[in-house]
Amino acid sequence: MKEKNSFEKAIIKEQIKLDCGEYLHECQVAFKTFGKLNKKKTNAILICHALTGDQFCTGKNPVTKKNGWWNILVGPGKVIDTNIFFVVCTNVLGGCMGTTGPSSINPKTKKPYGLEFPVITIGDMVNVQNKLIEKLGIEKLFAVVGGSMGGMQALEWASKYSNRINSVIPIATSYRHSAQNIAFHEIGRQAIMADPNWKKGNYYSKKNLPKRGLAVARMIAHITYLSEFALQRKFGRNLQNSKFFSFGFDTDFQIESYLKHQGISFVERFDANSYLYITKAMDYFDLSIKKGGLKKVFSEKKLKYCFFSFSSDWLFPTSETKTILKALKSINAKSSFMEINTDKGHDAFLLDEPEFHLGLKKFITGQIKEIKL
Amino acid sequence: MKEKNSFEKAIIKEQIKLDCGEYLHECQVAFKTFGKLNKKKTNAILICHALTGDQFCTGKNPVTKKNGWWNILVGPGKVIDTNIFFVVCTNVLGGCMGTTGPSSINPKTKKPYGLEFPVITIGDMVNVQNKLIEKLGIEKLFAVVGGSMGGMQALEWASKYSNRINSVIPIATSYRHSAQNIAFHEIGRQAIMADPNWKKGNYYSKKNLPKRGLAVARMIAHITYLSEFALQRKFGRNLQNSKFFSFGFDTDFQIESYLKHQGISFVERFDANSYLYITKAMDYFDLSIKKGGLKKVFSEKKLKYCFFSFSSDWLFPTSETKTILKALKSINAKSSFMEINTDKGHDAFLLDEPEFHLGLKKFITGQIKEIKL
Repeated sequence: MKEKNSFEKAIIKEQIKLDCGEYLHECQVAFKTFGKLNKKKTNAILICHALTGDQFCTGKNPVTKKNGWWNILVGPGKVIDTNIFFVVCTNVLGGCMGTTGPSSINPKTKKPYGLEFPVITIGDMVNVQNKLIEKLGIEKLFAVVGGSMGGMQALEWASKYSNRINSVIPIATSYRHSAQNIAFHEIGRQAIMADPNWKKGNYYSKKNLPKRGLAVARMIAHITYLSEFALQRKFGRNLQNSKFFSFGFDTDFQIESYLKHQGISFVERFDANSYLYITKAMDYFDLSIKKGGLKKVFSEKKLKYCFFSFSSDWLFPTSETKTILKALKSINAKSSFMEINTDKGHDAFLLDEPEFHLGLKKFITGQIKEIKL
Repeated sequence: MKEKNSFEKAIIKEQIKLDCGEYLHECQVAFKTFGKLNKKKTNAILICHALTGDQFCTGKNPVTKKNGWWNILVGPGKVIDTNIFFVVCTNVLGGCMGTTGPSSINPKTKKPYGLEFPVITIGDMVNVQNKLIEKLGIEKLFAVVGGSMGGMQALEWASKYSNRINSVIPIATSYRHSAQNIAFHEIGRQAIMADPNWKKGNYYSKKNLPKRGLAVARMIAHITYLSEFALQRKFGRNLQNSKFFSFGFDTDFQIESYLKHQGISFVERFDANSYLYITKAMDYFDLSIKKGGLKKVFSEKKLKYCFFSFSSDWLFPTSETKTILKALKSINAKSSFMEINTDKGHDAFLLDEPEFHLGLKKFITGQIKEIKL
C-alpha cells in the first residue's frame, strides 16, 4: 500500500527498551491529529485504537476510503469536539498502518522483520505513544480515551504515566485478558499459522499472502464482537440467496455471507503478522500481576476515571470493569461508571449508542470546567 | 483405522430418499448395543450422539481406547441401567465410525465419496436410525435420549415417529440452530476448507490429511462447549511451562495448551469431511419451519417429554428449551423440565452432574412403572 509512505509520522530516535528485554533502536510512529493544540497545551486528547483499528479515528481513511472508526464520536461539534480539543491518534507499535511493526524493514537485515520483530506488550505500545506526546510538546494530556484494546492502553497510561494525564476513559475493556479471550485469540493465531502462505512469517516478498488464515481469524473474532441476541436479530436463520437450502457447502445463511465479507474485506487492509503480535500483546495484558495489585497500580488519586461498559458485551463483560472499580473505591479514587443497556455486544462502543455518547459528553464537559481549559 | 471393519453393522438395502432429494441406494449403519432386549421388546432405549460422538456411548471405545462418552450414565446399575434396558447407539449417517458417510466407498465410482456424498439432515440421520430399529424388530422404543445434536435427533424422532416411542429426553439442545451457532460452525468449515490438504474433499488417498484445518475447527467449537466461568476457573491466566511469558508464539498459557491438545487428539479419530457434513446438518435443523410450527410438530399427546438444560450453557441456552416447552404447554402435552444449575457450560451434559443424573433417573423410574416394563 503506497499510501502508507505519505502518512504523518514521527521518528523516535532514542533506544526503546521493550518488556521482553530487547531493544528497538529506532522506531517510527504513524499518527494523525485533528483540531488545534491551544497555547497552554492543555486541550490534547489521546485516542487509542482497538486491535484492528488505526490512527484514522475520524475523517476519511485513505486506505479503506471509508469514514474513520470513531467518526460518530470525534469531529467538529461532536462529543470529542475537535473545535475544542487537539486529538492525537497513533497507530500502535506492532501495527501495519505506518508505525514500526513486523512488516517494517529491520535495519539490521534491510528486510521486513517478520517474526524477528520482538514480541511487544500494551506497555510497550504506551511507552511509544508517550514518546510521541513528549515530541509534540504536550506535558499533560486532557484525557486518554479508548475502547477494547484502546481501553487497555488507557489503563496502562493511568498506571504508568498518571502524572501526565488529567483523566482516563476506559471503555468496554478490562485490567486483564480472560481465559476465554486468550482462547479465541490463540485459535485465530493458529488459523494464520496453519495457512501455507504464512511461511513462518516470511511472506512479504511472496506473491501469495496468508489471506485465508487471516480471514478465518477475523471471522472468529468477529463473532465475539456481537451479542448472540444481535446476531439473531440481524441475521437469524435468514437465507442468503435461495428460498431453500443449497444442500452444498457454499453460503446458505446470511450470517455466513456476512462473516465471509468481514474476513475478505479485512485481509485487504491488515497484516497477518501484525495480527499475531497485537493479539499476543492483549493476551499478555494483566495489570493485576504488577506489584501491589490493582490498588497500587491505580494509586494516583488526582486522576479522574470514567468507565463505560455495555450490558451485552460478553468479550469484556461489566464484571471486569467492576473489579477495577472496587480497587479504585478502596483507595478513594475519583471514578465514575456507566453500564449502557444495549443488545449490540462489544461492538456497541463503536456504534450509535446515545446514552453512552451523552454520558461521555457529560464527563468531558465536567472536566473542561474543572481544569479551566 | 482397521478397527472399523470389525464394528457391528447393519446393511439397509432399501433405497433411502434424503431431504436434499437425492437417494442412497444402500446404507450401512454401525451400531452398538448394551444389555438385552426383553421378550416383549419394550425395554429398548435409543441413545443419539452429539456432533463428534459415536456408537460407543459406554464401555471401551476401540479407537480411542478410552471410556465411552456417556460411561458416567450408561451401564449396569447406572442411570440408564443396562441390566434393565437394551441400549442401542448408532453412529450417525455422515459419520466416520462405520456408518455410511463421505469417507465411505461410493458404489458408483468405487472410490470414497468425498464431496460427492449428498448433504444430509438430522431428519435423514433419524430415518436411518429408524430403519435399524425396525431391523432389530423393535416396534416401540422405551425412550430416545440425546444431548446437543443427540437432542436434535431425539426431537426429530418425536416429530416424525412419535407413534414408535414412549418418551423422549432431549438434553442441552434446541428446536433450531441459532445464528451464533451457525456462525461458529461456518468458521470451522472455512478453516477445514482453507487447509491445502483438504483438496476439495479428495484427500483420502493422499498421505497428508487436512489435520490442521480440522484441529482449528475443533478448537473453535471447543470454546463454545465450556462456560467463560469454567475456563477462568480451570485455566485462568495460568502459564504452561515458564514462570513468565515466552515472548514468542509458542504456548504461553495453559488454556492454549489445552485447546491445542483438544485439536490434536481430535484429528486422530475424526474425518474432516464428516465434520463438514454433520455441522451442516445441525445448521439446517429447524423444526419450527415445518408446516404448522412447533405446536403441530409435537402434536402427539401420548408422548412423554423430559427436557434438561444447563444454566451456563451458552451454545444451547435454557431459553431455547423454554420455547419448545411453551409450544408443548399450549397443546397440553406431557412434559417435564429441569434447568440444572452449573458453571460447566454445554459440556455439563457429559459430566458428573448429580442433580441432572438424579432427575433423569427419576423420570426413567416413573416411566418404568407407567408402561409396566
